[in-house]
Amino acid sequence: MSETSTAQRIGVLTSGGDAPGMNAALRAVVLAAEHYGMDVIAFRHGYEGLLNNEHIPLHAADVAHVLQYSGTIIKSARCPRFKEDDSAKLAADNLNNLNISALIVIGGDGSFRGAHHLSNYWSGQIIGVPGTIDNDLFGTDATIGYSTAVAIAMDALDKIRDTADAMDRVFIVEVMGRHAGFIGLKSAMASGAERMILPELQKDKPLTVAALVKHIKRVEAVRGPGSYVMVLSEHQWPGGAVALSEQLEAEYDMPCRPCLLGHIQRGGPPTASDRVLASELGVHAVELILKGETGVMTGLKAGQLVAVPLIDTWTKKNPLDENLLRIQHEIFNPVKKPSRS
Amino acid sequence: MSETSTAQRIGVLTSGGDAPGMNAALRAVVLAAEHYGMDVIAFRHGYEGLLNNEHIPLHAADVAHVLQYSGTIIKSARCPRFKEDDSAKLAADNLNNLNISALIVIGGDGSFRGAHHLSNYWSGQIIGVPGTIDNDLFGTDATIGYSTAVAIAMDALDKIRDTADAMDRVFIVEVMGRHAGFIGLKSAMASGAERMILPELQKDKPLTVAALVKHIKRVEAVRGPGSYVMVLSEHQWPGGAVALSEQLEAEYDMPCRPCLLGHIQRGGPPTASDRVLASELGVHAVELILKGETGVMTGLKAGQLVAVPLIDTWTKKNPLDENLLRIQHEIFNPVKKPSRS
Amino acid sequence: MSETSTAQRIGVLTSGGDAPGMNAALRAVVLAAEHYGMDVIAFRHGYEGLLNNEHIPLHAADVAHVLQYSGTIIKSARCPRFKEDDSAKLAADNLNNLNISALIVIGGDGSFRGAHHLSNYWSGQIIGVPGTIDNDLFGTDATIGYSTAVAIAMDALDKIRDTADAMDRVFIVEVMGRHAGFIGLKSAMASGAERMILPELQKDKPLTVAALVKHIKRVEAVRGPGSYVMVLSEHQWPGGAVALSEQLEAEYDMPCRPCLLGHIQRGGPPTASDRVLASELGVHAVELILKGETGVMTGLKAGQLVAVPLIDTWTKKNPLDENLLRIQHEIFNPVKKPSRS
Amino acid sequence: MSETSTAQRIGVLTSGGDAPGMNAALRAVVLAAEHYGMDVIAFRHGYEGLLNNEHIPLHAADVAHVLQYSGTIIKSARCPRFKEDDSAKLAADNLNNLNISALIVIGGDGSFRGAHHLSNYWSGQIIGVPGTIDNDLFGTDATIGYSTAVAIAMDALDKIRDTADAMDRVFIVEVMGRHAGFIGLKSAMASGAERMILPELQKDKPLTVAALVKHIKRVEAVRGPGSYVMVLSEHQWPGGAVALSEQLEAEYDMPCRPCLLGHIQRGGPPTASDRVLASELGVHAVELILKGETGVMTGLKAGQLVAVPLIDTWTKKNPLDENLLRIQHEIFNPVKKPSRS
Repeated sequence: MSETSTAQRIGVLTSGGDAPGMNAALRAVVLAAEHYGMDVIAFRHGYEGLLNNEHIPLHAADVAHVLQYSGTIIKSARCPRFKEDDSAKLAADNLNNLNISALIVIGGDGSFRGAHHLSNYWSGQIIGVPGTIDNDLFGTDATIGYSTAVAIAMDALDKIRDTADAMDRVFIVEVMGRHAGFIGLKSAMASGAERMILPELQKDKPLTVAALVKHIKRVEAVRGPGSYVMVLSEHQWPGGAVALSEQLEAEYDMPCRPCLLGHIQRGGPPTASDRVLASELGVHAVELILKGETGVMTGLKAGQLVAVPLIDTWTKKNPLDENLLRIQHEIFNPVKKPSRS
Repeated sequence: MSETSTAQRIGVLTSGGDAPGMNAALRAVVLAAEHYGMDVIAFRHGYEGLLNNEHIPLHAADVAHVLQYSGTIIKSARCPRFKEDDSAKLAADNLNNLNISALIVIGGDGSFRGAHHLSNYWSGQIIGVPGTIDNDLFGTDATIGYSTAVAIAMDALDKIRDTADAMDRVFIVEVMGRHAGFIGLKSAMASGAERMILPELQKDKPLTVAALVKHIKRVEAVRGPGSYVMVLSEHQWPGGAVALSEQLEAEYDMPCRPCLLGHIQRGGPPTASDRVLASELGVHAVELILKGETGVMTGLKAGQLVAVPLIDTWTKKNPLDENLLRIQHEIFNPVKKPSRS
Repeated sequence: MSETSTAQRIGVLTSGGDAPGMNAALRAVVLAAEHYGMDVIAFRHGYEGLLNNEHIPLHAADVAHVLQYSGTIIKSARCPRFKEDDSAKLAADNLNNLNISALIVIGGDGSFRGAHHLSNYWSGQIIGVPGTIDNDLFGTDATIGYSTAVAIAMDALDKIRDTADAMDRVFIVEVMGRHAGFIGLKSAMASGAERMILPELQKDKPLTVAALVKHIKRVEAVRGPGSYVMVLSEHQWPGGAVALSEQLEAEYDMPCRPCLLGHIQRGGPPTASDRVLASELGVHAVELILKGETGVMTGLKAGQLVAVPLIDTWTKKNPLDENLLRIQHEIFNPVKKPSRS
Repeated sequence: MSETSTAQRIGVLTSGGDAPGMNAALRAVVLAAEHYGMDVIAFRHGYEGLLNNEHIPLHAADVAHVLQYSGTIIKSARCPRFKEDDSAKLAADNLNNLNISALIVIGGDGSFRGAHHLSNYWSGQIIGVPGTIDNDLFGTDATIGYSTAVAIAMDALDKIRDTADAMDRVFIVEVMGRHAGFIGLKSAMASGAERMILPELQKDKPLTVAALVKHIKRVEAVRGPGSYVMVLSEHQWPGGAVALSEQLEAEYDMPCRPCLLGHIQRGGPPTASDRVLASELGVHAVELILKGETGVMTGLKAGQLVAVPLIDTWTKKNPLDENLLRIQHEIFNPVKKPSRS
């Protein structure tokens, strides 16, 4: 990478909680940049590395076989101090000193807020690539990592079903999702869970233990003895699955087992969906730079690549699919008794 | 199921090559039917069972925990004799004798042709649900089973990469797809394959061994020694991967290993995507019956549920995603040398 | 199964916590019994079903394709009341009334205590088959389910490593094992964990948070910044992984994430080792009946099938492999600084 | 690594067909060497790298997180010219010039023959570590990679069962094993295959198509219609699974599908068994060097670490487990009709 190169130089970093597929997005950025004759500089450890000038050049050979692995080869980090003005100014200086004219930020809403903050102090192009398992960004049907998180939660729920069924037992399985029910809804539906507790369902009418017990008993009455698996989104019950499970046992003498899937939802081989989405969005990010765009996130809406204003991604809400919600909550495991003609 | 029941009675069958997610679709049909107060009769072994009057009632308990398994609990079969007029007439009689007013056919284009044929002799409603790994049906962005087939092919390609990389070797991996490149394209992209041979790419300019060797050597020249993995769609080379591999060794002294993934692409736990899609389409099929529709296939286009005339599903062509094709073929592993400014 | 049959009739049940491979053992019992001309009666829900006379005949067709699934098709249960004398007498009566001359109990130490208790009131043969993920039975190198539990824990730890590495973070992963460190040791070694806390290591010198922090810092000093994954056996820290994690953060300002694998360790497809072991032990159990044995558990020691007095299985201790312990604890991640010449 | 270092320096290489777990063995060698104060030099591409002086130092950080991946980070290769005397002499010179006093060879019988050949020209210590999926080495109950190959074959067979069962179809699945039936036997047993064709079973009485058809029909007669899955070891039928399948269709009009698992059996995450075995044997190899041993392979027999003369590993035969053979072939799927009293 000669200093006299006249090729456009772009920077890239992965930021915030890591998401399966970040490596695939990174690879796509590097291969597309190479295709279009641009150089790529990666900052390690997200914005921390941008502030600390911890950077490395990335070539095709460096990303040859990384798309099959979760995590991020350039590491990620949270960087609270990036909210400060001095940090943004320092980042701008570092970018300018490296002759970087565009920066691709792979991350979630916190990372995009950071990118927006940086744009007040830096005149280069900034493109966001949605990388978060939570799928809570407006402007794209899916974020990178969401599909894999659902797949892992589903796989765990399948395993839970085996033992729940052997013992005719109730299980409460806590999944990730931050403040959105995407992982909860899809993993519940994909695993045939009898019940789900999602932020979107709790908003108007918070669940009570009594209502839950009533549902458990009705399912047993209708379908006969067997297992009952509930998917609980994080932050939807004080003390989580462990506390709710203890309440069921203490108050209703109902044997119940809690499970906390936790960070296993962020690892393992990314799904094909995540790898393909990451590949597409990574290339699109580079092509948005070529088109002169800035301050946007690349997304996929109804099969079409789109560019969404960064600020929209966290100020507007990505809603759950109403039809899936209806099917899982009203048809497959109706909370109310279905009214038949 | 009393004979005096006045509930509407619907029939269901799975037909043709089985696809992961057929059980999930079946479960959705049964749960939705129960929700709307309809009875379900399943015919075993596809149209064969319809002709042989091999039928069983299906209730919610029968499909309680089947969505996590591939295959089909009511069995599938190919039924060449169903093309005959007498067969369609016999099927119509059997359906009428059972007081079935609507039939849901879960299968691929052959099964839908059969359904269309039946409609000439039977006045009940007929709804198709797209169940085939090949994704070669017009009118839906994805068929049930396609996602799982891609996932399995990708998983196999990941394993191949491990050994290919350890030995710096060339591999040719043959995947399914009948006459379409969907599985080939997505699994090649998802696994970072260096090359793919798809019907859609072969149409205008069939591949030659010389061109392939040239590409292998160019990739090595650009990226250094290493593995090279090619995804070959079935029917795209006389004798398949084995023959092509032998030609590379015999004509160019290039060590090469073939792999035929075969029917493993039809088994194992269906992906979350397939389970959710199957659930959605199964419910939609029942709701289309309630709306009085007939002669249509349920599909998902750009996130919206649609009803497509059955006849369109095989007379019109479902094209590959041009953007994915471009990315994988021209950007990630360019066949032609990229022209840089 | 005619009442006038002169074939020997054996009973079988699965009891206590379910273990992956129980179905394979059950299948082996049924196929071996059929081979030797014996009838099989299964009691559902463990000893509960024996007391409630909940029994079904089992034939080869019933177990045709069950060995690939965890759980148990005849259900399991815990049965505290079986400790009472009246229960054992009732069970004996039920067995006698069914003309059952031998009973195979697939389960863990609690189930074998029950079997031993029963033997005081029943004169039939009793054979134990070791089915528990904990591997805490004397007399066999491995119990059915142990290999699968380790495989699942390892898979989860691999996923944790991905995200731990992306963020250079400390994780504490709690695994099952009741009062033995088998799952902890093998999963720690198989996943390359930096540390493990097992009952066997805690006995003489309980871990302190200070010692743990010291080790974390030394590993970082020696190997550079990176992830640190600790495997914690259940019951080895008050409050478990969550509490220990909070202490590390609160007392040492060391960011740390807990994970509770829980019951996912009991599900999913059993490993080949568990299926083969279960097949071998299930057949052996039947052959021990033919040889007139009673009051023994079938086991595999150093590759040889053995019969171990039931009472030994819980009164004697199955020790951890000292060499594995040494390698993982002293060579791979030495707690003390290695002394070099 | 200073030239004046007085630490003992050992070399290591991986050779021949790669096997899952080679990386875990390599890591164990490096960590044990570091523990005992020795330096490690790795030769890339097996004996080729030894001849070409392609070597790199390996430290703990280099192998930090490699045990979860198949393949070999130092690459493997076959090296036919190593059989020549000049090659062995050149290798000896290269080793001496690097002050290497002991060489650890991770590979199969071909690699051990090479090691033995080298020992005629080099006076350093040579220790073999059994790394091959075929398990065809005398002196160890299991070779590194065998467990993973079985696991992958079993997983593929599970998938095949799903589709075979949906269509009531016959499948012939060809697995690896070179000239031994280990993978065939274990994967057949673990997947509940109805039949297996292994070299050990073919020796005295080669299979005929007529006998196979007879067995297929008898299984169907006894157990009712359903799937029939046969595991075929490679080299046991002219033209393999494809040819045998075609013969069944052509001669007996019996629909049949072939599958060739091929090299997928060498990839993916190694099983826990392989990782633990590789860790144990890798450490043992280093400790054998410290004990002054040479010309031996490290192995695990009946749970004990052993040192086997290299020459024995290929001149003596590792037999199949007779009991497993009997169970799978005579009890689970008897070829002859069982004689009952």
